[in-house]
Amino acid sequence: MAQADIALIGLAVMGQNLILNMNDHGFVVCAFNRTVSKVDDFLANEAKGTKVVGAHSLEEMVSKLKKPRRIILLVKAGQAVDDFIDKLVPLLDTGDIIIDGGNSEYRDTTRRCRDLKAKGILFVGSGVSGGEEGARYGPSLMPGGDKEAWPHIKTIFQGIAAKVGTGEPCCDWVGGEGAGHFVKMVHNGIEYGDMQLICEAYHLMKEVLGMGHDEMAKAFEEWNKTELDSFLIEITANILKFQDSDGKHLLPKIRDSAGQKGTGKWTAISALEYGVPVTLIGEAVFARCLSSLKDERIQASKKLKGPQKIQFEGDKKAFLEDIRKALYASKIISYAQGFMLLRQAATEFGWTLNYGGIALMWRGGCIIRSVFLGKIKDAFDRNPQLQNLLLDDFFKSAVENCQGSWRRAVSTGVQVGIPMPCFTTALSFYDGYRHEMLPANLIQAQRDYFGAHTYELLAKPGQYIHTNWTGHGGSVSSSSYNA
Amino acid sequence: MAQADIALIGLAVMGQNLILNMNDHGFVVCAFNRTVSKVDDFLANEAKGTKVVGAHSLEEMVSKLKKPRRIILLVKAGQAVDDFIDKLVPLLDTGDIIIDGGNSEYRDTTRRCRDLKAKGILFVGSGVSGGEEGARYGPSLMPGGDKEAWPHIKTIFQGIAAKVGTGEPCCDWVGGEGAGHFVKMVHNGIEYGDMQLICEAYHLMKEVLGMGHDEMAKAFEEWNKTELDSFLIEITANILKFQDSDGKHLLPKIRDSAGQKGTGKWTAISALEYGVPVTLIGEAVFARCLSSLKDERIQASKKLKGPQKIQFEGDKKAFLEDIRKALYASKIISYAQGFMLLRQAATEFGWTLNYGGIALMWRGGCIIRSVFLGKIKDAFDRNPQLQNLLLDDFFKSAVENCQGSWRRAVSTGVQVGIPMPCFTTALSFYDGYRHEMLPANLIQAQRDYFGAHTYELLAKPGQYIHTNWTGHGGSVSSSSYNA
Repeated sequence: MAQADIALIGLAVMGQNLILNMNDHGFVVCAFNRTVSKVDDFLANEAKGTKVVGAHSLEEMVSKLKKPRRIILLVKAGQAVDDFIDKLVPLLDTGDIIIDGGNSEYRDTTRRCRDLKAKGILFVGSGVSGGEEGARYGPSLMPGGDKEAWPHIKTIFQGIAAKVGTGEPCCDWVGGEGAGHFVKMVHNGIEYGDMQLICEAYHLMKEVLGMGHDEMAKAFEEWNKTELDSFLIEITANILKFQDSDGKHLLPKIRDSAGQKGTGKWTAISALEYGVPVTLIGEAVFARCLSSLKDERIQASKKLKGPQKIQFEGDKKAFLEDIRKALYASKIISYAQGFMLLRQAATEFGWTLNYGGIALMWRGGCIIRSVFLGKIKDAFDRNPQLQNLLLDDFFKSAVENCQGSWRRAVSTGVQVGIPMPCFTTALSFYDGYRHEMLPANLIQAQRDYFGAHTYELLAKPGQYIHTNWTGHGGSVSSSSYNA
Repeated sequence: MAQADIALIGLAVMGQNLILNMNDHGFVVCAFNRTVSKVDDFLANEAKGTKVVGAHSLEEMVSKLKKPRRIILLVKAGQAVDDFIDKLVPLLDTGDIIIDGGNSEYRDTTRRCRDLKAKGILFVGSGVSGGEEGARYGPSLMPGGDKEAWPHIKTIFQGIAAKVGTGEPCCDWVGGEGAGHFVKMVHNGIEYGDMQLICEAYHLMKEVLGMGHDEMAKAFEEWNKTELDSFLIEITANILKFQDSDGKHLLPKIRDSAGQKGTGKWTAISALEYGVPVTLIGEAVFARCLSSLKDERIQASKKLKGPQKIQFEGDKKAFLEDIRKALYASKIISYAQGFMLLRQAATEFGWTLNYGGIALMWRGGCIIRSVFLGKIKDAFDRNPQLQNLLLDDFFKSAVENCQGSWRRAVSTGVQVGIPMPCFTTALSFYDGYRHEMLPANLIQAQRDYFGAHTYELLAKPGQYIHTNWTGHGGSVSSSSYNA
């Protein structure tokens, strides 16, 4: 008989932990997994002594659900999601709800939302972040899709979500169709950026200042008491300290070849598609690609020389603070770029996004959770129409306060030969963004010179002019040719 | 009656000039345009006194062609190409040849190639570069697609193509299906990079050294006698010198908001899709996006402060040479990244690409033509299996010889506040590529810490380990969850 409040399909680490989290909050969850033996294992072990029930078939699972039925999918993004949807639809009734909690591509979510609406099923694509820990004790949840579903899942979602401040849940309705997964995608892109920025700081500490692992761990612990207070800084300190069974530090034994599962890449591709200069996430993704060319790098390291080894002679304590401020300033740029992309996507897809609300959803529970995101929430509270984070007085002053250190850290790293793709692209963005006049007038002149692409005059924007630069050649303006 | 060797559809600047070029080489061309009045205008003006014939309908055009019929499309990439193909197919016979000379997306070319093969029509997608001048007097041509077509078009293509050295044509068969358009796409991406690198040099000359336009023109003229000898450096000198009708320089009057038509963006997206760190082209594309936010930059320039204005006090002549070497070294990185992408694409699509041949096709005629590309050809002649340009002795030494200047130019620009997205990303790539050990081990540790993604040990590659970093939380490894 119908007893379960919600069902969850997919008993990998995230699925198991979300189930236990829902159980803790008094919801009866029905667990299902394609390999059904996993259901029994889970009930006999992790879920032992809970109110969790299991099912050995989708039919059984559906029969155990109260109406409207609520089913969360936490399976591999892509075909597996469509396969389960196809199997579920014939078993469901009008008004039942399917929730995809995986890292699906936002376009797929939009497609599924439309297909299922036509069949009377309410579809929700929800970003879920926080890893094992978050899923278990309070994730950040970013639901979007068919808004009719929201009243039926709000209590569960906001109940299990992380809480910040005076108990505000890190979960609210994001927007229509693929908006939830788009916001989660940008979250993951920002996560790639934050991780790469920490790596660049770690690299400078290790190679310029010659700090040991415990010393670096201590520095990150200190930094976690500053504006950088965040989950990723906290775990970085723990990782640096962590000792292997042999009593040696584990980190230097780990292979420096970073994996990725796509969402960072999708963020960079979206930025290119919509013409938004989200350079820091782009560089963070490419940095992982370069790291994965381990064998080629080993070969290159034997052949390609760096600068003469320069022994750092400045004030080490002061330079450590320069690195911290370089990280902080670069992080501000990265988030400014991320929100530029959200704003552009809202325009492209006609979504109404609540930027302060998104900052709050990321404020706790998820991988990028930080005190910093509270400051972003404040900025949007001060001015909901804020065009760019850098134009908010708090962030403007923060970057200006950091820029001396930022420039010192970068120019030192450049002289010593430390790769800093994200520190440097952030600085280039800042310097480009604050330049009324960029050298792109030369690009326009070149394009008109070789391709008759025409250009505008500063004095006459909107009028497109072609100059016959060479005196010979045609005077036809370009229409079909693209360069 | 059949008299024409080839037909060309699309009488914009590129089409007109390609027709006149073919006419100069003794080929009889039949001209057609959707707006047929353009045909008569062309015959009465630009084509007056030539052997060019016109057609007022596709039927008439086809009737005037020798067999196998050869038809070049130079129309806007996208739907217009498919529309013309659909109209042409019923008029053609087995073995006739349709050539798309526009900047089509390589996937579209692969699709069209397969569709038309099934109908007995030979399809060729050819990159065409060189702008108005190139099309008129000798373009770079990059044909790919159905190789059966090559013997029937080789004489015309190699006849009208640019020639270098002892008359080698800048045109050869690239590869199957979309290979020609993929190589053209990468060419355009590299073109974006080259143009942005020149802009960064121009910006440093103007703002750090305070050089005037004629002085800068002179510098580029001098540079054009060095390793940088290329079309883009040459026209940059001409553009800097160029005076408006009022006797003032034209360049500073041009609006610094760069346009783009997609192929640079596609190159960066492909790089992300195939996981190749083509960072310089990515930054060049984003730099155009940032330049196009002109109004937002004007607003930001009033609000965001840069560093204290520092008056340059070094040796100006020496710093100018530092800028030149920074440009040269960055350019080497950009081409190394571009060929990394070609190599990966060849693997993805099963193409056999002749890298030296591609360098030769780009050596003359096209926008990126340069002496430099001859050096790349030489490198691949020395070692056709060369894995990366940077591992060739000539380029290895060139970069090492430049790196002191490169680092000085970048760190100076960083201190003064000049945006240098491409100079800096190139340097970060070089420093990352030559590092046997990158800080990505920390990324892997973080991913395992929060997402149970597992990692490899340096000592045991291929074995994926999960550490329970916190002591609590599950010990299940991640399968479905993606962070």
